[in-house]
Order: sequence, then C-alpha cells, then structure tokens
Amino acid sequence: MSKLSTQPYKGTRDYYPEDMRVRNWLFSTWRQVCLSFGYEEYDAPVLEPLELYTAKTSEEIVNEQTYSFTDRGDRKVVMRPEMTPSVSRMVAAKRQELAYPLRLFSIPNCFRYERPQRGRTREFWQLNADMFGVAGIEAEVEMLLLTDKLMSAFGAKRNMYEIRLNSRKLLNSQIEKASPKENASAVLRLIDKRDKMDEAAFTEALTAAVDQPTQLTAFLDAEDIGTIDDPAADGLKELLRKAENDGITNVRFVPSTARGFDYYTDIVFEVFDLNPDNNRSMFGGGRYDGLVAEFGVEPVPTLGIAPGDVTMLNFLDSWNLLPSLDAETDIYIAVVGDVAEGAQDIAQKLRLQGKNVAVDLSGRKLEKQIKTAEKKGIKQVLFVGEQELTSGQFTLKNLDDGTESSVNLDS
Amino acid sequence: MSKLSTQPYKGTRDYYPEDMRVRNWLFSTWRQVCLSFGYEEYDAPVLEPLELYTAKTSEEIVNEQTYSFTDRGDRKVVMRPEMTPSVSRMVAAKRQELAYPLRLFSIPNCFRYERPQRGRTREFWQLNADMFGVAGIEAEVEMLLLTDKLMSAFGAKRNMYEIRLNSRKLLNSQIEKASPKENASAVLRLIDKRDKMDEAAFTEALTAAVDQPTQLTAFLDAEDIGTIDDPAADGLKELLRKAENDGITNVRFVPSTARGFDYYTDIVFEVFDLNPDNNRSMFGGGRYDGLVAEFGVEPVPTLGIAPGDVTMLNFLDSWNLLPSLDAETDIYIAVVGDVAEGAQDIAQKLRLQGKNVAVDLSGRKLEKQIKTAEKKGIKQVLFVGEQELTSGQFTLKNLDDGTESSVNLDS
Repeated sequence: MSKLSTQPYKGTRDYYPEDMRVRNWLFSTWRQVCLSFGYEEYDAPVLEPLELYTAKTSEEIVNEQTYSFTDRGDRKVVMRPEMTPSVSRMVAAKRQELAYPLRLFSIPNCFRYERPQRGRTREFWQLNADMFGVAGIEAEVEMLLLTDKLMSAFGAKRNMYEIRLNSRKLLNSQIEKASPKENASAVLRLIDKRDKMDEAAFTEALTAAVDQPTQLTAFLDAEDIGTIDDPAADGLKELLRKAENDGITNVRFVPSTARGFDYYTDIVFEVFDLNPDNNRSMFGGGRYDGLVAEFGVEPVPTLGIAPGDVTMLNFLDSWNLLPSLDAETDIYIAVVGDVAEGAQDIAQKLRLQGKNVAVDLSGRKLEKQIKTAEKKGIKQVLFVGEQELTSGQFTLKNLDDGTESSVNLDS
Repeated sequence: MSKLSTQPYKGTRDYYPEDMRVRNWLFSTWRQVCLSFGYEEYDAPVLEPLELYTAKTSEEIVNEQTYSFTDRGDRKVVMRPEMTPSVSRMVAAKRQELAYPLRLFSIPNCFRYERPQRGRTREFWQLNADMFGVAGIEAEVEMLLLTDKLMSAFGAKRNMYEIRLNSRKLLNSQIEKASPKENASAVLRLIDKRDKMDEAAFTEALTAAVDQPTQLTAFLDAEDIGTIDDPAADGLKELLRKAENDGITNVRFVPSTARGFDYYTDIVFEVFDLNPDNNRSMFGGGRYDGLVAEFGVEPVPTLGIAPGDVTMLNFLDSWNLLPSLDAETDIYIAVVGDVAEGAQDIAQKLRLQGKNVAVDLSGRKLEKQIKTAEKKGIKQVLFVGEQELTSGQFTLKNLDDGTESSVNLDS
C-alpha cells in the first residue's frame, strides 16, 4: 500500500499543543470580554442550506468561495463561509420568545475557498458578537466600547490601530447624488475594491459608472465629517461625538470604507492595524437591520462585529503582544523501576488536590524521562520508586532552577 | 422574494444560550479531567483528504456515511467522520520531534450522514483522548482510570454503567479456531452486528461463515475470562486483574464486544449505560498500534477513547445528572430615562471589578426591562437614572427574593 500524506488539507492547519495553547488563550480572552458585556454564547451547525447565503452574503463569496455540495439526500448545502446568516436564522426562528436587547456571541470556524496567503486560510475562526433589538445609536456606541475592550484585553494600545467608521446610508446618498448610470450597489462594490486597485483604473471605472465622478471622489477623500453637508451623515456625526466623549480617541471617519457584505444597512466599522509592517484591515462589522426579516418575521434592528483568528494573531505578533504560555501539566512523574501502578496511585492523589499530573509509562531510564518532561515544558518532576512508595517521602525536582525538595504527600 | 426557512439543516441542531451553557459545561468537564491526567489539547481541520479514511475507517462509514465532495481545485475531500485518522496523521508528521509518552485530547465536531434518531445526529462532538508511545498494559490501565474519572466527574456512580472489555487479538484467535470460510474480518463485522440482529439470523449467518459455529458461539457467550483457554487472552486477563486492584468494580469481560473500526489491534473498550430506560452502548475505544505507521513512519503503539456529546447527555439525562446552570451575566442595568451613556459608564466600572454586566438599551418602561432580566435568568438588576448618577447611590434588586439594597459604587 502506498503511504498516506501527513500534510493537512491545503489552506488549513493542524494545531499541535503549543499552537492550541495560543488559540485557547485567544478564544478565552474573547469569551471573557463578551461575557463581561452580557453577551451570551450560542452556536449553529457548520452545514447550512445554500439558499441561506444566496440571499444576502456577497456575490463573490457565494459564487467563487463557498464549499458547497449536494448531500446524499439531494440537498444543496454549504459549509458556512460566515456566521451572520446563521445567527439571523436562529433569531428569526424564536423571534417572539427571545428577550431583547439580545446580545449573542459565538466563535465558529468558517470555510472559504480562497488562495491561501498571509492573513487568509481556508478554515478560519471568527468571533461573532451581535446585538439584536436596539435601533438607536447607543448600540453602535456599545459596539465601539466592546471593540476597544477586545483590543485592550490583549494589551493593544489605541495608537496601534484605528477604528474606521462610515455609513452605508451616507455612501448610498452620495452615490445617488453622483447619479449612477447602473445600479448603485455596483458602485458600492467598486468603492470597496478601491484600495486594491490602481488609482487610474479606479478613476476610469468610476467615470464609467456615475455622471459626477469628481464630486464622488471628493467625498471619498474627505477627512472631516464636519465638511459633509448631507442629512444621511447625522447618525455618524453623533456616533463620532459620543466616541470622543467616551475617550475612544482612535476612531476616524473614512468615507471610502464600504465593507464587502451586501446586508449592511447603515453604520459600518473597520478595525485597521497601524503597524507599518502589517498595515491592513483586521476586521469589521456594522448594522444589518434587514436580515432577520428575510425569514418572514417582524424586522429586528441588528448590528455586530467579527474579528478573525488569523488577522488578530498577525496583529498581536506584529506588535509583540503574543505571550509565552506555560504547559498545563503541573507535575511529571518519573517512574523508577516497575512501579507504574504505584505511580498512578500517587498521581490520583495529586489530581484530587487539583494538580494536573502525567505519569511516564515508558519504562525508560530516568534521564530520558526527565528529558521528556523538559521537552513538554513541564516545570516539576516527581520521582516515584519502590523506596518512595514505602517511605511516603518523595523528591520533587524543579526543572526551571534545578533545585530539589523532599515532599511528604500526606501533607 | 420567498421567505427563507428558519430550520437548521436536517440532523443538526442550533445551540441557543441555554443549550450552549450545557454544552460548555460538558466540554469544560471533559477538558479538566483530561488536563488532570496530563493530556494536551490539539485540533485538526474539519476537511481531510478522502484517502485518509479509505485506508482504515469502517467501510460502512466511508461508503455510506461520509460527507465527501470534490473541491473547486478538484481535490476529493471529506468532512471528518471521526478524529482518529487526523490525530494519527499529525503524530506521523512529527514522529521524530514529539516527546513520548504523548497524551493528546481534542473535542472536535464530526459529521456522518446517518438517519437522525435518539443518540445520533449528523453533526456531533466527541472527546478524543489518545496515548501514543506505550505498548504495555499500563496504558490500558490509565485509559480505564481516565474513563472512570470522566464518568465520576459528572456525578455518575459505578452502578450506573459498566465498562465492557474485549480483545481483537483474542477475537481473531477464536475466529481462526472456528475456521472461517471467508476472511476473518467479515466474521468480526458479523459479531459486531450481533446485538442489532435477530438471534436466528445471526446463527444462520455464522453457520455459513465458519466451520465451527457452536464453538465460536460458546466463546461469544462466555462470562468468565478464567474459562477461556487461549494465550491471546493473557493481556486481557492481566488488565481485568489490575482494574480490580484499582477498585474499578464495573469492568466486565464481554467477548462479543468488537467495536466497528477496522483499525483496532488488541484491547477494545465499550462503556454501556445500565439504565433500563437507556440500555445502550455509550462510547468506546481501544488500541490501534498500526495506524501511525500507515503514513510511512516507524510504528507508534497507540490507544484511545472517544465519548460523544449526544450519548453522554442522554446518559446524564437518564440518571438525572444534568445540573441547572446559571446565566453568566451577573448584573442587568435598567436604564431610567435618557441616560444610556451614564449607564454604560457604570457598567464599565463594574466590569473592571470582574462583573459581567448588560445594559438595557431599549428605552422601554422599567417593568419591561426587569422582565427581560428575569427572562434571561439574571439575578440582579441595578437601576440607573439621572438621580443615581448625581448621588452615586444606586438601588440593586435581587430578583430571586425581591429584596432591594442601596449600593455606593465607589466602595
């Protein structure tokens, strides 16, 4: 038989214990911050019906990037490329029973068939934090406070990143004023792609798409919201004022921020890394008041944000904010001679005291057992042999400094 | 546009906060027990190449139950139906670098296209705990200790379930003695199906498959390992003796226990619920010494167990062991009047003190806000209005007993 490959599927990764430790640290920090704001955890299936995404997710994702297939029962299914349609479906299913304001969070893995590159994998995790049932700008203010805390909880300072704000309402109003020749949403997608385009190509495309390209470009290049004379900017102006009141100094109006998803209806957010080595959009969010109603229930005002694992870890790495994490095992028992059962008894006693204890069952020489403990990053080795089991006195070696102490396990 | 369905994909389920709380409790208990034995957490991608399973997973699963498809790059992929091949692949990939004994655990979601029924869903979670690098029976003893602790950690008593033990080596030896007419593994699969078959149908099939069906049936019905005169039973005899020494009284030799996977090579385990209302196999495990070597590296002796979420929750439910779990949010702030920003300031202060605090941003009447807190299972409501913000004195209402107290947030 030909041998099997040991490589993971293209664009995905294996998490060995040292990688998993980092992931657990990331996720538990996210979880703690969300819980502290009263968000409750939920989850939805990885598989969803295809039609859930054709309605509202971006065309590019549905047509080119989904893992979609037909199951053995002839149903068209998709491995979720994002979580927003699933949580909207769940809220719609219990529209009447749920208590609003409803705050929900989840850390799902999502799947997109994209070219793997820095910041992009085909399987990735995303924190989804959403608030349902609040139409007022207080909800956006809380999203900013939550974003701020989600960053500071990792040690990020406000000068390391900025929160870019814009409004789809304002963008649509400005596109309307510039008289689009085709539908306005095509112009919106063009604006969303601007950063990845050559400026001349963008100008050419914009000139083809609207009657007043110069006017629209002037808006897109604006830096001060005060200069924008449009009632559609009112909500955004209020939000910027309130953010300033709350001391969130790194919020900035960036009129070309559009965000890719079709379902956004008003304010959109984008968190941007200011590190010159990693100058890029990290994650975003926004208000999507129309999505729950797509399921045939009364509309629910909704907004949310969705930081991803890969971009977040890149950010933390670029600013040297990744901690060194200890092994979870507290004590490694080195077994001297043929006393594996006695060693397990001792381990069981220590476990009852709340210690995490691994027993070396290899039967190898002592020095090899100690090497194994070192390799696993375990700090303490307890030696257990016939003599120790009889006397009840054990030697505990600290691998950090090499010191040894004698311990009595009854105390 | 026609409205979208709010139902999850067939055979899968949504986890609303109250369901998620139970799942988190289950998983964190599993995690704590595994860590206490020195197991380290890992993860692998949901998608794996098809050939990973064609080698060793059961034929039934690969041919009839996998979610397999061809990706946009023409690769044949599978949504993992189980974790064992993935972890074997990961160990093989770093065969030389890893330190043995290697203890690994993970709580992956797995996918099988089966008819949904009690104890079976198409997406399910499984704790996978595996030990690599120990050939001796001490490894099986630890697996029994771990299983015992995985049950008692939930409050299960030893009279609620039993751990059935058998050996593939012994089964194969006995099948060999009964002179199979076709290959021995077909007889093994037949034995594995015995419980689900009519006894007459089983006898007929067995008679067609081996020369000495009576002799083999006598073995399958044996209750005392002492009566089995076969050197292939030696390991199992030793394990049963050691289990008794360790006080694990609910271990039993059940010679018809085969377990479905093709990769098992020796001792197999099966945990069986003894509740008359839920009398069924809950989960299993065993030794699979050959799997890592399938990847073209030096063999690694390996064994593991894999409890599933659905069967475990059914077990806990059948024995009334499911706890009632509190909401994670400690305090709900009811906002009196137009002071949402001031209320968030107070919430931020409380969050800094380690409290989980949600603010009602709905602008509704006070009694509706209190109702919302009750519905969410939050125990305390803090009232924040203009007057409280000025005086620094707040009223905290305990929703359990209706009492109110006055608190100063500076203290």
